[in-house]
Amino acid sequence: MERIRVSILGASGYTGAELSRILLGHPSVAITELVGHGKAGQPIATVLPALAGIVPGNVLAHDAARTAAAADAIFSCLPHGASATLCAELRSKGKIVFDLSADFRLHDLAEHERWYGHHGAPSLANSAVYGLPELHRDAIAKADLIAVPGCFPTASILPLAPLAKHGWLDGSPLVVDAKSGVSGAGRSPGERTHFSETSEGIRAYKIAGSHRHTPEIEQEITELAGKSVRVIFTPHLVPMTRGILSSSYVRLPSGVTVQQVTDAARAMYAGSPSVFVHDAGACPDTLWVRGSNRAHVSYTLDERTGWLLAQGAIDNLVKGASGQAVQCFNVRFGLPEGAALGSPAMWP
Amino acid sequence: MERIRVSILGASGYTGAELSRILLGHPSVAITELVGHGKAGQPIATVLPALAGIVPGNVLAHDAARTAAAADAIFSCLPHGASATLCAELRSKGKIVFDLSADFRLHDLAEHERWYGHHGAPSLANSAVYGLPELHRDAIAKADLIAVPGCFPTASILPLAPLAKHGWLDGSPLVVDAKSGVSGAGRSPGERTHFSETSEGIRAYKIAGSHRHTPEIEQEITELAGKSVRVIFTPHLVPMTRGILSSSYVRLPSGVTVQQVTDAARAMYAGSPSVFVHDAGACPDTLWVRGSNRAHVSYTLDERTGWLLAQGAIDNLVKGASGQAVQCFNVRFGLPEGAALGSPAMWP
Amino acid sequence: MERIRVSILGASGYTGAELSRILLGHPSVAITELVGHGKAGQPIATVLPALAGIVPGNVLAHDAARTAAAADAIFSCLPHGASATLCAELRSKGKIVFDLSADFRLHDLAEHERWYGHHGAPSLANSAVYGLPELHRDAIAKADLIAVPGCFPTASILPLAPLAKHGWLDGSPLVVDAKSGVSGAGRSPGERTHFSETSEGIRAYKIAGSHRHTPEIEQEITELAGKSVRVIFTPHLVPMTRGILSSSYVRLPSGVTVQQVTDAARAMYAGSPSVFVHDAGACPDTLWVRGSNRAHVSYTLDERTGWLLAQGAIDNLVKGASGQAVQCFNVRFGLPEGAALGSPAMWP
Amino acid sequence: MERIRVSILGASGYTGAELSRILLGHPSVAITELVGHGKAGQPIATVLPALAGIVPGNVLAHDAARTAAAADAIFSCLPHGASATLCAELRSKGKIVFDLSADFRLHDLAEHERWYGHHGAPSLANSAVYGLPELHRDAIAKADLIAVPGCFPTASILPLAPLAKHGWLDGSPLVVDAKSGVSGAGRSPGERTHFSETSEGIRAYKIAGSHRHTPEIEQEITELAGKSVRVIFTPHLVPMTRGILSSSYVRLPSGVTVQQVTDAARAMYAGSPSVFVHDAGACPDTLWVRGSNRAHVSYTLDERTGWLLAQGAIDNLVKGASGQAVQCFNVRFGLPEGAALGSPAMWP
Repeated sequence: MERIRVSILGASGYTGAELSRILLGHPSVAITELVGHGKAGQPIATVLPALAGIVPGNVLAHDAARTAAAADAIFSCLPHGASATLCAELRSKGKIVFDLSADFRLHDLAEHERWYGHHGAPSLANSAVYGLPELHRDAIAKADLIAVPGCFPTASILPLAPLAKHGWLDGSPLVVDAKSGVSGAGRSPGERTHFSETSEGIRAYKIAGSHRHTPEIEQEITELAGKSVRVIFTPHLVPMTRGILSSSYVRLPSGVTVQQVTDAARAMYAGSPSVFVHDAGACPDTLWVRGSNRAHVSYTLDERTGWLLAQGAIDNLVKGASGQAVQCFNVRFGLPEGAALGSPAMWP
Repeated sequence: MERIRVSILGASGYTGAELSRILLGHPSVAITELVGHGKAGQPIATVLPALAGIVPGNVLAHDAARTAAAADAIFSCLPHGASATLCAELRSKGKIVFDLSADFRLHDLAEHERWYGHHGAPSLANSAVYGLPELHRDAIAKADLIAVPGCFPTASILPLAPLAKHGWLDGSPLVVDAKSGVSGAGRSPGERTHFSETSEGIRAYKIAGSHRHTPEIEQEITELAGKSVRVIFTPHLVPMTRGILSSSYVRLPSGVTVQQVTDAARAMYAGSPSVFVHDAGACPDTLWVRGSNRAHVSYTLDERTGWLLAQGAIDNLVKGASGQAVQCFNVRFGLPEGAALGSPAMWP
Repeated sequence: MERIRVSILGASGYTGAELSRILLGHPSVAITELVGHGKAGQPIATVLPALAGIVPGNVLAHDAARTAAAADAIFSCLPHGASATLCAELRSKGKIVFDLSADFRLHDLAEHERWYGHHGAPSLANSAVYGLPELHRDAIAKADLIAVPGCFPTASILPLAPLAKHGWLDGSPLVVDAKSGVSGAGRSPGERTHFSETSEGIRAYKIAGSHRHTPEIEQEITELAGKSVRVIFTPHLVPMTRGILSSSYVRLPSGVTVQQVTDAARAMYAGSPSVFVHDAGACPDTLWVRGSNRAHVSYTLDERTGWLLAQGAIDNLVKGASGQAVQCFNVRFGLPEGAALGSPAMWP
Repeated sequence: MERIRVSILGASGYTGAELSRILLGHPSVAITELVGHGKAGQPIATVLPALAGIVPGNVLAHDAARTAAAADAIFSCLPHGASATLCAELRSKGKIVFDLSADFRLHDLAEHERWYGHHGAPSLANSAVYGLPELHRDAIAKADLIAVPGCFPTASILPLAPLAKHGWLDGSPLVVDAKSGVSGAGRSPGERTHFSETSEGIRAYKIAGSHRHTPEIEQEITELAGKSVRVIFTPHLVPMTRGILSSSYVRLPSGVTVQQVTDAARAMYAGSPSVFVHDAGACPDTLWVRGSNRAHVSYTLDERTGWLLAQGAIDNLVKGASGQAVQCFNVRFGLPEGAALGSPAMWP
């Protein structure tokens, strides 16, 4: 079989590196380009030392015409704003585009502008599909522009979706308290990710409605619930490199049991190669999914109060970004959904 | 001035070690004994290598008579159950006892037995004062048996107390999502604290009403609020050694502003040498308090939902245990409350 | 093609878990058994949570007859001593055995007994091949009992071998200062690997000729050098889970340049899918090989003294154990040497 | 007693912060100024959040005249180059200066220029004393310009000094393999200290005679040995915040025992409040000294080769920088040498 040719834009960042790692093991893919910006012209072995001795050549500069000629599918790991422009250009040349930035995730243009400012390709916003295969598998299969979800939304939506779908959310604001590894902040050094001030401490950041993943969670949960759901979203920075654990708190309607919720989640995710629903009461650990495209979901009832704790654990760079992009790619190109994504976590 | 002679029981564990570190710098204290159990007879320099070259001699075996003769005040770092028995014996000999175990924290004996089983000294339960100086300074000053609070309760009660006191809790269950460093699990090795399975992952544990610090938080908040308050308490294990960050979610009554809450906290903690209340919107980091007896408190309003995020950050071994015990000791013996506790955090 | 059936003994430890991770992605292998001891009868999903939803069934108890019927090749991750006995039994049933323990690594029985005590299967000692494919590829291809090298020896021998082979070691004792992640200590919790006393500190252990990997390094380097070479071996425990960096110090013979050494290494490892030799002067990072079967090697000349620093970086659980075992397996069964081992490091 | 007024220049960096932490507990000191550069005008509570609620006011801009009026003694934590100029100005105003930069450490001006380039105050080079109290206590007591040693030199010289002094070094190059926490790289974020690429990996850097601490070690050991000693110095970056472990390898002269070396070290450091010499064979852990001004030293003989392993463990920010500066200050001002430095390590 001929391999599908792919180009990775923004290849020198963490999600780009992770795409290389995953796609190098994909039996139906040939990576034809690693495109960077700041690192263009430098040897791949230097920019991404894990590829030394594996991938020869240099990081290329951005050139949409060259990319369009070299690749059938494009993975864009560019920052939001910049990504939309380039994605639009490559879409106009007929390429299938998987955009890992936030540019096409929010269906509502006004909402997008409220959180991100000016949109780089507003005409395309409505043509994109939100690339969470567990919710939008059929749409992804037919889409040409897939907006790969954010890491926090993936970890939060997966445990909440069965509750929303079954009408078990009462419409009051949802507390979503999430904990992320530091790689989510990307490769650019800064005070917030300096080792000495990040190791051995935990802190929240962009709290109380200021983190841009908030509307993404609300969009998907609202759509599933059929009514507006607001989220009180609190991200925390955990001194580890990878992983997101999302802990959501739901006042369960009377009569609904935690076993029903667990069963509903298992039914909903029966078709997914990536989601594992634990028995009620389990506490998933992000270490159990690190390096894999797996999501661990679990529900526990606080019997003293009747509230439900819904947890989701993923690797932010895999199921929260690059692995999920490949999962969308597989769905879109009619390949087995789990192709190149079957590896269990690197544990420990 | 003659120094007050103190004995540390359970000196070879982390809270015992931390008491030694703090009390060695106390101008009014002489440590006369380090008492252990499993390590009795071994050189202190081996058991607690940080004390090598500083504290000579061996760890002593338990001997209440010897301890009563050697010390005016006792710090017990023994496990719950064992602690009550020995504390009772030392109380009967007239010693002032600071118990860092959970044995005397819950005023209601039935509640204690529900969470911990049989009480080792039930007759003393009512004579103990809950050793959170910010709430019970006057009672501590007159008490002979002080139950030093748990680490999670300290981190959670301090930000919640002003809300409870002012009637700003509506009585619905409170979500308290807390994150702790690993030292809270103590010095005994186990699967849950094995480096390779603890580093690079985050997970919750003892969730949904199964963690024994739950009733302690409820007792204090209920007392302050003047009405029963239930807590949905979720502790998480963070891959760092020290620190607790507690994030609580409160639906703020309409008309109450985050500035009012911040001001109320500042007023309430005006007399404390340990509590710092940040400006509204700040995100305290446990690294900012590591190694110190300080508690950082902060409030942020989620304007989209009207909910308040109340955060508290402490070092679990200091303000969450040994430092707080020394703070109680200072209050009890009429010393400056911050004696030996003035050091800022070891940052970074 | 029919898949080769393999059994993993000692599957619940870290090297066992890592074998599962690697072999699940091997196109020519079917894992037919996961055999444990302490965890026999427990669900695999519980014992190895990274396999939850991927590998059904339970961990099996040891039963050589059942294993012999179920598998063509055996990977033993048992502790030394116990491993020899079971390997001997399975060898006697005609199985090809890859032993990850130390039982068959030292060719000299007396030397083995000096370091490890009584040998569990002395008659087999001479029939084993030291499973470092870069040195013994041809012998491994014909062997039925392969002694997979230790992690420190792999990281140390690879950079030293070209020097030994070319006669560039002068016979004086070699300083080998090595740094290992904590997973090398295995899965059993203990004081040495307790998170709170392991994180945020570095220390040496089993120094000055007391670590059992010493004779293994000496055996291989001596054989290559054609003269006795002694090693002053100092392992250190680094607060990270995976990785070994080995730093060796060699007084380079006059006239030999660092470029010659680098070239010699490149020539020697030209056939290996796993070894990458950096340009002279590079500083390999264990993070660049984490999770992969790759070894990064580098040489740097200290021009002020004429000494050479020879560095090697591997993942102790992969190239230092389970990946190397699979590499040996590939060689032995005539498969591509890099089958299932092509993944770059999980970086970051 | 009137307190000695001190100013800290470069107060917003890690060694500046650490000086604040230590000096706030000094009974004979009043900090009158915290002077920064990039952070001038910002609240101290923001720049150094560990001081929030403890030290009011703002970071001040550099102003030598104001500083000279405000302080009797100056601690300079400025970068090398910049430090010399300001130190010279403050010396010219009669102030006692403790310079934590490298500007005055090397006695030989040509050597300084070889490693650091142009010297900012060459005329003062000879007037400075190398501030390692264990070697130069008497000179420090009379000095007005003290060059506080580098962190690696402190950790390396302390174990090597007794060997040099007793003539037990044979003059061949010494292997010094050192491992440092990340705080040694300072507070400015960069690729080398970005959390995601620093955590979970170990690497060497500035190897083979390129690290500027090399000549400092050579200067002191050469002086003690009375003959030129060259050092092959290899620093490594360890994924932890604080601590240096230095491992040096010495071919011990025949007839000299490890006990003699240990005894010699104990004799040499008998007067020091900071150095602890372990029994032969111990493996000091940097965690045992973290946050303290203590140095743990240990010697072990490799009996198979006759080589000695000399280890030293310190906290790079305390005994390797700010604590040592205060120790020098105490010596210079006739205070107890251990004043404000008595705290044991923060363990764990």
